[in-house]
Amino acid sequence: MYIPTFDDVKAAHERIRSHVHRTPVLTSTFFNTMTGADLYFKCENFQKAGAFKVRGASNAVFGLCADKAKYGVASHSSGNHALSLSYAAGRRGIDVTVVMPRTAPDAKKDAVRGYGGMVLECEPSTAAREAMLKDVVDETGADFVHPYNDHRVIAGQGTCSLELNEEVGPLDAVVAPIGGGGMISGTCLTMSNISPHTKIYAAEPENADDVYRSLREGRIVEDDAPQTIADGLKVSMRPRTWHFVSNHVADVLLVSEDEIARAMYLVWQRMKIVIEPSSAVAMAAVIRNRDIFNGKRVGVIFTGGNVDLTKLPWMQGLGLEKSAGE
Amino acid sequence: MYIPTFDDVKAAHERIRSHVHRTPVLTSTFFNTMTGADLYFKCENFQKAGAFKVRGASNAVFGLCADKAKYGVASHSSGNHALSLSYAAGRRGIDVTVVMPRTAPDAKKDAVRGYGGMVLECEPSTAAREAMLKDVVDETGADFVHPYNDHRVIAGQGTCSLELNEEVGPLDAVVAPIGGGGMISGTCLTMSNISPHTKIYAAEPENADDVYRSLREGRIVEDDAPQTIADGLKVSMRPRTWHFVSNHVADVLLVSEDEIARAMYLVWQRMKIVIEPSSAVAMAAVIRNRDIFNGKRVGVIFTGGNVDLTKLPWMQGLGLEKSAGE
Repeated sequence: MYIPTFDDVKAAHERIRSHVHRTPVLTSTFFNTMTGADLYFKCENFQKAGAFKVRGASNAVFGLCADKAKYGVASHSSGNHALSLSYAAGRRGIDVTVVMPRTAPDAKKDAVRGYGGMVLECEPSTAAREAMLKDVVDETGADFVHPYNDHRVIAGQGTCSLELNEEVGPLDAVVAPIGGGGMISGTCLTMSNISPHTKIYAAEPENADDVYRSLREGRIVEDDAPQTIADGLKVSMRPRTWHFVSNHVADVLLVSEDEIARAMYLVWQRMKIVIEPSSAVAMAAVIRNRDIFNGKRVGVIFTGGNVDLTKLPWMQGLGLEKSAGE
Repeated sequence: MYIPTFDDVKAAHERIRSHVHRTPVLTSTFFNTMTGADLYFKCENFQKAGAFKVRGASNAVFGLCADKAKYGVASHSSGNHALSLSYAAGRRGIDVTVVMPRTAPDAKKDAVRGYGGMVLECEPSTAAREAMLKDVVDETGADFVHPYNDHRVIAGQGTCSLELNEEVGPLDAVVAPIGGGGMISGTCLTMSNISPHTKIYAAEPENADDVYRSLREGRIVEDDAPQTIADGLKVSMRPRTWHFVSNHVADVLLVSEDEIARAMYLVWQRMKIVIEPSSAVAMAAVIRNRDIFNGKRVGVIFTGGNVDLTKLPWMQGLGLEKSAGE
């Protein structure tokens, strides 16, 4: 099992530079006052294809030699990796097939097709998506770009905190949401090399708390088909991401569905930007844990902005009660 | 009737500099491809108090001599001017009373109170709000800062296109929404001085087309209580804004309620930013009039981002049909 190094992150940064945005870092007087922290929001919701995943996907696609590239790429994804891989493959002009759970937002499926990707729908479980993907790879010879358990992908995601650190200087902590652990692994890889005192916190929905339980039990615990509005965070870790999580993550911070919805609502209302529920998980974790972050310089990674605008959490009554009077 | 000059705009820019944001100018590959134009979006949705109106309000509040300021300020407003005047008065530490239509979004009324403003509710008509305001001024001696028919306010709004021009250089056209005409008047004032060849287009809802009809008839035509989702654009011009509109505006571009909702949806979905319906009126006008803007460098003013997130136009079925397949 090859574990990527910081040299891989630097190489990824060069490789993907012309294909992805250097996203802005925003600040918010409102949230600084609310939490007592100096918060720096790395806005991957403004990233190409609407999420950070385009970093890892582009690193994998543009790193392929021509002989491999001609068979195309394939993957399974709850949404943003599918979009990102399709975007990157489209820019390189190679085929791409993605296996998506049938319950994924239509907006994401349509966007994959819009980038020229082929969508195959499967049942919404990790087992189902992996089985169907294996069939695709066997049939086409496509290169499988796993959404997170892939050294090229982890190195690509590591470019995000590299930029954040360049932009705002030393941070006491970085908070990012965790699903399979690609972004957190890349963040651990980069920060442990360039800013080893910075603590990395993984933010996770209570309803999909496999990483929280994994750290307590000292082994990968898997959920199959958990229910959370943070649809990007339903997957479980794999060995490469567990390596980084188990060695570098300071703690896992859990948040409820109501807290996720409320944090998302507040970010939209106060910062005037569209973030998806997974991104709001990181914001919710900072709001819930004022005691940890008060007085600290904290990077918060807003991982993406791909939302079905007709199905917002507060339309389902989530998160609104506690936000009255804000 | 004092008509402000470009010197007033420059003085306003100095006066308000430390109280307002120099907002970013964004671009969008998606909308450039869609319209064939090079679009530069001046993002006043990221402005203090969530809208451009804080420019004019701050210019008026901070320009008051101490003897006047001690009686406070007052105004009537459909929302954003109320917020902005409250913000500015709060920063100067003086009293502020605003008359708001009872139908204005709760989010705006709450935010006014949050800035320390006193809200008085009236019936949703221009006549009703003006009558109640007169009572307030008679009683308190407050300085009446009209939301647009005020030379200090128009000069303040003119600082927006001053920044836009500094940022992106010569533009062929600027498109901004029009309600009472404060932003358009400030834009005309500034651009006619620093870039006289730039054409100024006012974008207006078909359902509140008083400016369109005014230009055709050569006199101010008033609507009372028009119905449009662009709640900031329901008011009518007054002599100072009519002066600029009648002398400088190239044309008024009308858009339907569905077009406003669809443009708003697309901006949220593609640019990942929250803009209010009034801002979307400008975007809708550019989309509808590709023939005018194709091949041109066009500034588009996103005037604000104060939206009740629980009452979005597409929840009422507006604008969604035509956006299928985007």
